[in-house]
Amino acid sequence: MEEAQLLDGRLVAEEIHKETREAVQRLRRKGILPCVVFIRVGNHPPSELYVRMKQKKAQEVGIQSEVIALPEDVTQQEVLESLDRLNQDPSIHGILVQLPLPKHLSEKKIALAIDPRKDIDGFHPLNLGKMLLGEKDCFYPCTPLGIQELLKRYQIETEGKEVVILGRSNIVGKPLAALFLQKSKYANATVTVVHSLSQNIKEHCQKADILVAALGKAHFVTKDFVKPKAVVVDVGVSRIADPSSPQGFKIAGDVDFAEIKKIASWITPNPGGVGPMTIAMLLANTVKAAELSLGHPF
Amino acid sequence: MEEAQLLDGRLVAEEIHKETREAVQRLRRKGILPCVVFIRVGNHPPSELYVRMKQKKAQEVGIQSEVIALPEDVTQQEVLESLDRLNQDPSIHGILVQLPLPKHLSEKKIALAIDPRKDIDGFHPLNLGKMLLGEKDCFYPCTPLGIQELLKRYQIETEGKEVVILGRSNIVGKPLAALFLQKSKYANATVTVVHSLSQNIKEHCQKADILVAALGKAHFVTKDFVKPKAVVVDVGVSRIADPSSPQGFKIAGDVDFAEIKKIASWITPNPGGVGPMTIAMLLANTVKAAELSLGHPF
Repeated sequence: MEEAQLLDGRLVAEEIHKETREAVQRLRRKGILPCVVFIRVGNHPPSELYVRMKQKKAQEVGIQSEVIALPEDVTQQEVLESLDRLNQDPSIHGILVQLPLPKHLSEKKIALAIDPRKDIDGFHPLNLGKMLLGEKDCFYPCTPLGIQELLKRYQIETEGKEVVILGRSNIVGKPLAALFLQKSKYANATVTVVHSLSQNIKEHCQKADILVAALGKAHFVTKDFVKPKAVVVDVGVSRIADPSSPQGFKIAGDVDFAEIKKIASWITPNPGGVGPMTIAMLLANTVKAAELSLGHPF
Repeated sequence: MEEAQLLDGRLVAEEIHKETREAVQRLRRKGILPCVVFIRVGNHPPSELYVRMKQKKAQEVGIQSEVIALPEDVTQQEVLESLDRLNQDPSIHGILVQLPLPKHLSEKKIALAIDPRKDIDGFHPLNLGKMLLGEKDCFYPCTPLGIQELLKRYQIETEGKEVVILGRSNIVGKPLAALFLQKSKYANATVTVVHSLSQNIKEHCQKADILVAALGKAHFVTKDFVKPKAVVVDVGVSRIADPSSPQGFKIAGDVDFAEIKKIASWITPNPGGVGPMTIAMLLANTVKAAELSLGHPF
């Protein structure tokens, strides 16, 4: 039996980065220099790493970027004041606050305080509401958007297909359901969302033409969950103990890749699948924000 | 075999109206007179009827109301100016623009122009986005909210249950999916949304513990769609020819009530199920808006 083909997120992300770079150059010729500001709070090594990765990619595509590192004990009021200043600065097109935040800060209030026109993460409820309504003049969250884009680049049709989404998080499961339910190409799917309180999780997964695992439980999805020739997208990122690694752990996805690649038609590697797509969509959203600043209504 | 019990929307709505009237009286004692403004445009007899019904119910529960009837040829700008004035008037807590609007007006821009704190219909994308995120300090659309409330009053559990929603409209299907996916009591369901482009619609329906039909196709859901002992909620409203009626038509739901009541455990009559609940939630939302105006953050 043939093995599944790879939904190669790294490769596709590079393609998108190339297009983003071209769009940046077009904007520069019109006198717009796309600019993104990353805010991170306190000392949280993974956040530092993520911001560094995003900034590096921004630089590669010609987007100007700035990192504002706020101290661990910054007050809510101080964060809101920083955001207000950035909201009002017309030279800044995108604002991203790296999560998670220290416990004394309200992620909800901070998401609301970002100007929706600069909300390149797509976490502002105004953007999520517009997404649910099927509108386009807004920002969609980068991971759901990256998953849709990955399928699109491999021309994997979703219309009328059974899409099963494992997990109902605010950043993946729920917005992805909203996206696949839209009346548009690479949407129009029949969507089922299953989660930790669902019964018959396995039976639902077995019906999926397209299965998206976004639970964050290492290797939860085993071979018996997957219909032959299904498309499998692995969003999960967990740490599992690995005495042979210098850090003592390794990163694992939600999907048992080695076994499932033997029966699926398409599968994302993880890492190298959804992760790179997320960053690619973040920078594409930044360019969209810069284009919208040229005066498109929003 | 026993017949299904009725999810009696008229009865439950009256219960809710009674609670709303009590809440209005509490607010009046605090010096707040809850007030709603209905805007309708042009001559559209069903809209006139709906507004009249809503106004009558508002009056019954002690909510002050006003109807602004704008001419068919009102401009978008004039509507937006009316909304702006109402948004700024602190004596007005709820604003409802009766749909549909004449073609030259943008329902989307008008929904966006209502202050989200006065959006008792729950159609503003900010409110929909907050609903998707599971937040409570916002307004949920009245039909989905009414369906959830109806199940709640009959203590029909949804946790871990298979909820199948037929239809993906912006006012019922999609927000109802968001509501049933929330992490809360009378939510926490496994949710599947099927629609006109879905394959295997009947097979999905046959798996439903709770089936919500919101397609607007008369008697689309026949007996063979329904699992024995399922809960069936009929949202559909269609006109079908009826030579014996003076108007030449009658109103039909999406569900073949006569046959399905023989196998379901619970079923909504239609009319008398979801319709009255929708108005009850609209007035409950108006009271919530008046309570929020007392200074709760939003």
